Amino acid sequence: MIEAVGLDADDTLWENEAYFRASEAEFATLMADYGDHDDLTQRLYETERQNLVLYGFGVKGFTLSMIQTAIEVSESRLPAPLIGRILELGQAMLTQPVTLINGVIDTLDALSDKRLILITKGDLIDQQRKIRASGLAGYFDEIEVLADKTVQAYRQVLATHGIEKERFLMAGNSVVSDVLPVLEAGARAALIPHNLTWQAEHADDPQQPGFYRLRSICELPELIAFVEGGG
Amino acid sequence: MIEAVGLDADDTLWENEAYFRASEAEFATLMADYGDHDDLTQRLYETERQNLVLYGFGVKGFTLSMIQTAIEVSESRLPAPLIGRILELGQAMLTQPVTLINGVIDTLDALSDKRLILITKGDLIDQQRKIRASGLAGYFDEIEVLADKTVQAYRQVLATHGIEKERFLMAGNSVVSDVLPVLEAGARAALIPHNLTWQAEHADDPQQPGFYRLRSICELPELIAFVEGGG
Repeated sequence: MIEAVGLDADDTLWENEAYFRASEAEFATLMADYGDHDDLTQRLYETERQNLVLYGFGVKGFTLSMIQTAIEVSESRLPAPLIGRILELGQAMLTQPVTLINGVIDTLDALSDKRLILITKGDLIDQQRKIRASGLAGYFDEIEVLADKTVQAYRQVLATHGIEKERFLMAGNSVVSDVLPVLEAGARAALIPHNLTWQAEHADDPQQPGFYRLRSICELPELIAFVEGGG
Repeated sequence: MIEAVGLDADDTLWENEAYFRASEAEFATLMADYGDHDDLTQRLYETERQNLVLYGFGVKGFTLSMIQTAIEVSESRLPAPLIGRILELGQAMLTQPVTLINGVIDTLDALSDKRLILITKGDLIDQQRKIRASGLAGYFDEIEVLADKTVQAYRQVLATHGIEKERFLMAGNSVVSDVLPVLEAGARAALIPHNLTWQAEHADDPQQPGFYRLRSICELPELIAFVEGGG
């Protein structure tokens, strides 16, 4: 039996990466004097990766990385009003509406006999805002905002809530965050791909029992029935 | 009986505000062309307060507020290298060593028969770094990083951990965050003043039973014995 189902939030329950891509494109437009679009977004990505250990995931760190990249690619010649525009880009991301992904409500309804745990990562305050704005908080028995989705962090979540790993399944759009560490912790994981997923979240599908690749979140209840039937 | 003791972290267990004050002073020095020290730090404070709802507490939001203030006070005439210096100020704060406050270890040792919960707020990743670097994680049965210390958030912590409000005492350096919402939730609160406390955390002492003002964290075990003795 699967007793508890973990669900990722960004790009699993609601759109997120689309806002980052839009801001990235806007950033490249603002900075067009200092490089072409691909070069600028590549530099931005490298700065983000470098800063992950300091800033963690989320919009504030992304905004700081945009500013740092802007200063670096312009060799400090950048006019201050452009920095002001980047700050505003970041602030706009923190007030974006929350757009649910198709099929989420029906899926959560169908899973209502399971213990549902929302497991996300990033900025605490922004994730809490999105959870509130989504209207989905009531579906979840527990909400966990993690600094990062490591094996250790998943083990901690299972321990805190007294869930056996054999009775837990995680579903999300990132192989790196929602699948690999969950399998390593001894639980099951379903990948629900999203056409926009941050490149740092990509990895090959694991060739491992307990991993399932779905086409959409709508298949999750069926998958669970399949697993419980001994599949 | 007091079953569980909540302890604030920043400026209760370790120094924190000192780093913010030092960065504020450095910020004012960098910006000396655009205003005097008091005026600049006042503008910065106003920007921080305005941005709290978007950014929450912590170094990343503080850095973004410094950059915004710098652009505003310079009327967008600020040279980009100064923004680079502000970014570095913020990054240095995220790698500062953790300095324990005097008496913390002895106090935690003396409270080892209680359930100890570290209750802090701010950036998830930075708080987790400081908890690790402090070497204190092993003293705590639970660690809660909250987006904000509201009545609602304290009620949630007590509910999650199955603690009755009559058996809980919170200790920290902020009347606003560690005392008032705790009393409102029906539990007890001890104020342990720190000579550096952010002005947004100041409020008058409540005239209310269940509130205790201590001189240092070393008095906490005695206070608990006093409360348990019917004081």
